[in-house]
Amino acid sequence: MRVIFNEELKQVADDLDHMAQDVRKAINGAGEALLKQDVEAAQTVIDGDIEIDALESSVIDQCVKLLAKQNPVATDLRVVVSTLRLASTFERMGDLARHVAEAARRTYPASPLPESAQPVFAEMIDFLNHTADELVNLLNNRDEKHAESIILNDDKLDDLHHKTFELALSDDVTRQQTVDIVLLGRFLERLGDHAVSAARRVAYIVSGFDPSKKPTRDEGIDIA
Amino acid sequence: MRVIFNEELKQVADDLDHMAQDVRKAINGAGEALLKQDVEAAQTVIDGDIEIDALESSVIDQCVKLLAKQNPVATDLRVVVSTLRLASTFERMGDLARHVAEAARRTYPASPLPESAQPVFAEMIDFLNHTADELVNLLNNRDEKHAESIILNDDKLDDLHHKTFELALSDDVTRQQTVDIVLLGRFLERLGDHAVSAARRVAYIVSGFDPSKKPTRDEGIDIA
Repeated sequence: MRVIFNEELKQVADDLDHMAQDVRKAINGAGEALLKQDVEAAQTVIDGDIEIDALESSVIDQCVKLLAKQNPVATDLRVVVSTLRLASTFERMGDLARHVAEAARRTYPASPLPESAQPVFAEMIDFLNHTADELVNLLNNRDEKHAESIILNDDKLDDLHHKTFELALSDDVTRQQTVDIVLLGRFLERLGDHAVSAARRVAYIVSGFDPSKKPTRDEGIDIA
Repeated sequence: MRVIFNEELKQVADDLDHMAQDVRKAINGAGEALLKQDVEAAQTVIDGDIEIDALESSVIDQCVKLLAKQNPVATDLRVVVSTLRLASTFERMGDLARHVAEAARRTYPASPLPESAQPVFAEMIDFLNHTADELVNLLNNRDEKHAESIILNDDKLDDLHHKTFELALSDDVTRQQTVDIVLLGRFLERLGDHAVSAARRVAYIVSGFDPSKKPTRDEGIDIA
């Protein structure tokens, strides 16, 4: 029984890793689409979101079956419950990356962003690419250092998000650009929040520290 | 054993009902805050979000304990897994209501919305108040009719959300109002999405139909 459980747990862990890698690709691609008007990258992110959604369904099904058949307890139970929740977080991150890609595709060959906003958004994308790398590393080696780095660094993204409002309020941009800056800034900030939430969940698997005691507050109303 | 399980399941179901009622109150209050510049209502929503967060933690803890001690299968397992996921959905709805309340408090005694945007937002709030009633009913009596009504009606909210972009792009509003219309419209639209997702999860408990096969697509990039 125990061997089967471990095999099945390994399968679901592999699927979860796969989701994390897909999310990293989606974030990379959304950044290319947004900053370099790469419409093929945009389309790849949009099409690829279906795979992330399908993986979520599969991971949840597997977790429910594991719970039904194997009655895991202690660490194993923590792993299964956290995996269920991580799958939903990754699914949501895929949606957000898709939204960014859709915005880029909509205005192609122009950028949805004015020149003035490009540097701040480039910094946000850099930050999120790095965070996505850390998330994949964290899942692979379960080293809490990566979780800490994700959780502690999130303030930087919030600071950048704050700057986007200054850009959105400038008279030098069109109304449509104001709308796009606000929405794109929000999508990227939420991507960071979900990464923090994912990092806490992995930390919970590793250490048993319950991340729900320290929920990610979405302080997203910080509007100008 | 079985009696204890049912008792414990009843306790967690009561806590989940409590969360749904708190979310309904938060949506009602956010609407009052936004449309009637009721700053006390805003503060109540903001302060009350801590209770919703605490209930989420408690529901998740109880579900994990149930899974560990009782090894539920079939319908009981579906109830526990869906309850876990519903708690997270409700927690998120509380955050979104709080964001609306925070926007109202920030601009008090003025409204964050221009006059021109009030009717559309009033319709969105009406819609969400009705949806929140249906959610509470659904949890109480597990009648799939309420789930269907929530799921099928969501298009109305999307149409209203679409209209907010026209208002945001008008030259008659200030830049700050454009920013606020976009964010507030997004928060309300996401509240509706989460209500749909919650309705699907309750339908899953009732009928065994797996809601993850028909995920709520967040089509939120519909930016003008």
